[in-house]
Amino acid sequence: MAKKIIVIGSGAAGMTAASTARSKDPECDITVFTQDEDVAYSPCAIPWGIEGKSKWTEIVMHEPEFYKKERGIKVLTKTTVESVDDAAKTVTANGKAYTYDSLIIATGGKVFIPPIEGTGLNNVFIVRTVRDGKNIQETLKTAKSVVIGGAGVIGLELAVSLRNMGKDVVVIEMMNQVIPRIADKDMADNIQAHLEEMGIKFVMRSPIQSVNGTDKVESVTADGKTYPCDIMIFATGVRANLDIPKALGFDIGQLGALIVSPTLQPYKRGRLVPDIYVAGDLVQCESAIMNGATMSQLGSTAVKQGAIAGNNAVCGEKRIFGPVASPWVSFIGEKQIAGTGLSQGLASWYGIDVVEGKAVGLTRARYYPGGKELIVKVLAEKKSHRIIGAQIIAGEEATGRIDWLTSAAINGTTAEDFLIRSENAYCPPTSMVKDVVISAVEDLCRNLAQ
Amino acid sequence: MAKKIIVIGSGAAGMTAASTARSKDPECDITVFTQDEDVAYSPCAIPWGIEGKSKWTEIVMHEPEFYKKERGIKVLTKTTVESVDDAAKTVTANGKAYTYDSLIIATGGKVFIPPIEGTGLNNVFIVRTVRDGKNIQETLKTAKSVVIGGAGVIGLELAVSLRNMGKDVVVIEMMNQVIPRIADKDMADNIQAHLEEMGIKFVMRSPIQSVNGTDKVESVTADGKTYPCDIMIFATGVRANLDIPKALGFDIGQLGALIVSPTLQPYKRGRLVPDIYVAGDLVQCESAIMNGATMSQLGSTAVKQGAIAGNNAVCGEKRIFGPVASPWVSFIGEKQIAGTGLSQGLASWYGIDVVEGKAVGLTRARYYPGGKELIVKVLAEKKSHRIIGAQIIAGEEATGRIDWLTSAAINGTTAEDFLIRSENAYCPPTSMVKDVVISAVEDLCRNLAQ
Repeated sequence: MAKKIIVIGSGAAGMTAASTARSKDPECDITVFTQDEDVAYSPCAIPWGIEGKSKWTEIVMHEPEFYKKERGIKVLTKTTVESVDDAAKTVTANGKAYTYDSLIIATGGKVFIPPIEGTGLNNVFIVRTVRDGKNIQETLKTAKSVVIGGAGVIGLELAVSLRNMGKDVVVIEMMNQVIPRIADKDMADNIQAHLEEMGIKFVMRSPIQSVNGTDKVESVTADGKTYPCDIMIFATGVRANLDIPKALGFDIGQLGALIVSPTLQPYKRGRLVPDIYVAGDLVQCESAIMNGATMSQLGSTAVKQGAIAGNNAVCGEKRIFGPVASPWVSFIGEKQIAGTGLSQGLASWYGIDVVEGKAVGLTRARYYPGGKELIVKVLAEKKSHRIIGAQIIAGEEATGRIDWLTSAAINGTTAEDFLIRSENAYCPPTSMVKDVVISAVEDLCRNLAQ
Repeated sequence: MAKKIIVIGSGAAGMTAASTARSKDPECDITVFTQDEDVAYSPCAIPWGIEGKSKWTEIVMHEPEFYKKERGIKVLTKTTVESVDDAAKTVTANGKAYTYDSLIIATGGKVFIPPIEGTGLNNVFIVRTVRDGKNIQETLKTAKSVVIGGAGVIGLELAVSLRNMGKDVVVIEMMNQVIPRIADKDMADNIQAHLEEMGIKFVMRSPIQSVNGTDKVESVTADGKTYPCDIMIFATGVRANLDIPKALGFDIGQLGALIVSPTLQPYKRGRLVPDIYVAGDLVQCESAIMNGATMSQLGSTAVKQGAIAGNNAVCGEKRIFGPVASPWVSFIGEKQIAGTGLSQGLASWYGIDVVEGKAVGLTRARYYPGGKELIVKVLAEKKSHRIIGAQIIAGEEATGRIDWLTSAAINGTTAEDFLIRSENAYCPPTSMVKDVVISAVEDLCRNLAQ
């Protein structure tokens, strides 16, 4: 009899899991439950959707009809799963119980909204779904001033999009730098200065205290000062959505996310749960850099986990999800900023002494037109000389370089070994003869030798 | 007393060696001898110089005066070294003997010109020095049709530059594909088709038999057919310039280049030569992919070797030049093509059975405007599943990706391990959520499993 696969969640993790399950088993019966009205889009796309750079119809990759016709996957949108019974192996939605052989939980994350007054007012938004994006876009037609809560990458990308649309934009951030936690302050300050040049205003070290207004938002108060606005958008980070795992009594880790085996199965009081797999923002990962737990709430991680969960749900063969360095990249104004592994802040959280190396150069040979500034920073553990993280700011071509450094960090390469065992491709239109990545590691080696 | 360092050769290897020696020892006496009239330029720049995209004054990084004033390095241009006496430790030039404590030989390569008739005619050029470039540029003012001998990367870059200048360009190649040896035929054919669309003509499988004319070139004969032209340019590859090493009786390797130790010292009848170091196109390297000799006549390699030779010439500490994967990249028309490690052809030369994986995607999320095609091909050794090479064609952002795959190849990573231990940074304007590199390795793993 055909195996029954149920997926809860229609984001990158859930839909990748469903499609992978189909590709591995042409016979199985696959049903996806989602509260959302759209499926298989990238939340990372929403700032570009609001600005109109990308079309909503293109951001939503496929309609439910496509999945039904082309892949034999049933997608039930706007459908809330009421309960899961892992003993009876059923999922209940709309009062009806559906049985499964394998269940994939990919319920993602919830935007964290601080517990303050006024967050329920009209024109207060989060940025998570295409519906959120469309609502913001509609409201912007009659709005001039926007407060964005949170200076993470989504907050900053959104700030640029709204500024490009001619809005007055104020970003309010609790910490003393933009892109806190994953970027170092020197790199973050470079990006902040770039955004300030575009006319975006920043209010730093200021926790938001209240959202004010009668019917709709009129202002936001942070650190005792009040900032008038027509729209308020929370881009304050994402927490694992644990409603279903908690109801099932699954083990929750020290970072507030679901503990999983390398095969992406959850645990219940220390014992592996059979026939259930998880993927995406609700999963607690293992760090590839240091022994220990870490979060990796990235679209790229969701897709990778979704493929493994989907495979393992239908196959005897169990694929393994490895530890993560969590490389990230963002395009903010005219600059790309990318990072991997540990920042100074994360290293200090892990209790590691760090030595850094830095180099500034160009993305092309100095005599070839159009070259853009390229800043590379590399961090090593002082004790072992292992490369544990890196960050790049560049006008172009940051992504491949950070993936390169990610490999070095995941493989435990020392700075000295990196210099011996790395080469860079060169031609005048695409790099300097000695790539800035190499120069940064040379600087790191000099600093380690001191 | 200040140490005396002599460098022969003023290319990327020689000038990097001289500058590195200076940075390591502020006191030493450094003299560079060069036959050339310009110093420290990148031969890779010449196609862009001819087209006018880059200025000759910018391609030549520094004048001899700069080295004298700013770095205390004497550069004797247009000066031929007549002999070296490695027992007396002297170099003779212009009839005068100069003593050295350490000598660095960085005499580079010579463009290979086939031993046929007519290569001495006027308007027959090679592409090696800025002087060559300027001469070609001057002659092009009154020339319409050009034959380029050799479809390697320099030949193709030059073909595009000349086509952009409105010339009729015919490229004649002995092998059955462009970029022979280092690119696979499927990737090469993609680039050739792109150039043919630009109006560049190709004559394949046709060794050049004669260059014809009375005073200046009028036509070129290849494989029995004759192609009229106003200019003929040989871009037929580079051979190690071994005049000095041969005169000194140094050991020459099986690839016709100088055998060196990891510290970049030559051998004489099997014994390491003290106080002499070499760097650049005349050096035979060790392959990082297979045990065995290989050539790495790249600007990036020359700079890396120059720094090590310069360091070792003045320091007690001896740095090591590691085995090479020789990543390369070229910007040809609107496409970048890059490669690393072994191609199918080189793998077959080493006697390795190969399995390949390939994926086609975009450089950006499919809904983000401006994304360009990205083709990634990865080769693994069938027996060990080790990644041994890769090639990329992309409208943008090939360089960092090939450096990433270079790390994998140098570190002996298997295809399966790459999937577990690699992650890619993602944001819609700079990559797909699953990078095409990862998709290509997935395809490789599927093919290896069959």
